[in-house]
Amino acid sequence: MQKSIDDIDFEKSGGLVPVIVQDILTKDVLTLAYANKESLELAKKTGNSWFWSRSRNKLWMKGEESGNTQKIKEILVDCDSDAIIYLVEPLGPACHLGEKVCFHNSLEK
Amino acid sequence: MQKSIDDIDFEKSGGLVPVIVQDILTKDVLTLAYANKESLELAKKTGNSWFWSRSRNKLWMKGEESGNTQKIKEILVDCDSDAIIYLVEPLGPACHLGEKVCFHNSLEK
Repeated sequence: MQKSIDDIDFEKSGGLVPVIVQDILTKDVLTLAYANKESLELAKKTGNSWFWSRSRNKLWMKGEESGNTQKIKEILVDCDSDAIIYLVEPLGPACHLGEKVCFHNSLEK
Repeated sequence: MQKSIDDIDFEKSGGLVPVIVQDILTKDVLTLAYANKESLELAKKTGNSWFWSRSRNKLWMKGEESGNTQKIKEILVDCDSDAIIYLVEPLGPACHLGEKVCFHNSLEK
């Protein structure tokens, strides 16, 4: 089913929705970040991974400083319209620590 | 790196962390849900996908009504310790609408 940005339920989480960034080829989950309506509009318009930074309280584009941008190939929306996936082609490591993915830790068993 | 439940930053999002549920074999992203500390402890202890329901304000186990439980094989933690992946073997559809994954909608281009 096709959805539009107006279908997204930003209000449920105070104006933000969680965005899962997934590598479209390897299917690795790269990062979990957040988008408000404006960042989602920018992502759709530019094809780059735009988010809302909760710590810096501003819009940010992945790779704007590091150069490790991500090209969005498709955006998926979940059944409740309150979570999103950016399917991307990463042009470098996703993690600010230099790792390919942010989820590089295991919870001890 | 190994992390413990005490490393998880539940406070950043009001006591909850987002949990990405990913099929360990197909690498499909099944669902985005939320966990508080107690649900993460239950997930670790029982090996079933436990969450906190924001709409019903209670702990819930995936499949408790439908029987479509998920067996957790590993739990991953991100670089900031504020997002989690349950790597699971699903015993049925993930979505309450009967779809295999919750992310079965595309954002219009």
